[in-house]
Amino acid sequence: MQTLIDGILSRRSIRQFTGESIIEDDLNIIIRAGMAAPSSMNSQPWAFVIVTDKTILAILCKKLPYAKMLDKAGAAIIVCGDSKEESWVVDCAAATENILLAAHVLGYGAVWTAVYKNESRIEPVRKECKIPKDMIPLNVIPIGVPVEKNVKPIEKYKESKIHRNIW
Amino acid sequence: MQTLIDGILSRRSIRQFTGESIIEDDLNIIIRAGMAAPSSMNSQPWAFVIVTDKTILAILCKKLPYAKMLDKAGAAIIVCGDSKEESWVVDCAAATENILLAAHVLGYGAVWTAVYKNESRIEPVRKECKIPKDMIPLNVIPIGVPVEKNVKPIEKYKESKIHRNIW
Repeated sequence: MQTLIDGILSRRSIRQFTGESIIEDDLNIIIRAGMAAPSSMNSQPWAFVIVTDKTILAILCKKLPYAKMLDKAGAAIIVCGDSKEESWVVDCAAATENILLAAHVLGYGAVWTAVYKNESRIEPVRKECKIPKDMIPLNVIPIGVPVEKNVKPIEKYKESKIHRNIW
Repeated sequence: MQTLIDGILSRRSIRQFTGESIIEDDLNIIIRAGMAAPSSMNSQPWAFVIVTDKTILAILCKKLPYAKMLDKAGAAIIVCGDSKEESWVVDCAAATENILLAAHVLGYGAVWTAVYKNESRIEPVRKECKIPKDMIPLNVIPIGVPVEKNVKPIEKYKESKIHRNIW
């Protein structure tokens, strides 16, 4: 299973999509990966809105300044957290990383565009997708067929960020 | 690379270790996976303390109520975030998920034990490992050789957590 490591190391944020759709079965695998994340006391304080409706994607594209790639995305996944659970932010972040990895390994590109804690982004997302008040959209993840294939990953390893026993 | 999906779906939290050490090269791969996570504006607001010193592991075991498995862990990774960066919590959570996945695929067991936001856990971790004031330990991840091999993953997929376009 060495390829899991390869998948982690070769994933990068992809922002240019062809406009093609995402295969429905692939979306299900991607969401299943998200739900496999760990969570505090196994609370699973998440929910996922899969947006494939072109009208909604266009509105979100217009309202979210850092999600302009939505206009060519095949889908977007909105990761929402249950604000009643103390750990919702980290648990939903772990689920998001699984989603990004799964999308990558299935040949798609994806990028984490932050929504929380910015009220000017939370509100339009909540309104368009009718997300209930106790659920908070952590991010919007546009997913698409990448324009450029096999993009070289960015090397982010830095020895200086590792400490042994004592900082 | 289908095995990345298998790795995500088969990982689970492991809390019983044999007491054996972790191969040094494996620790490096695990940390490298952590650093491959996405981060807001590529800020990489993380640092990692790798603890293999048995005395420090024993002290952390004593001080952290939910990390008692440290007494049989081969190592622990403390994921720290730069509190000056707004996104440090979610970025470090994504790095943590990569660490958990990499440990799993290399045959180890690991578990996310939360430190932040609990001051009674942050302080002893900070003190023992001399973590500087602007860095915050998000969690301690005990890693070890699992007592039980090939533990069956928990099925966490729930259709009820998926919404299509509109909640």
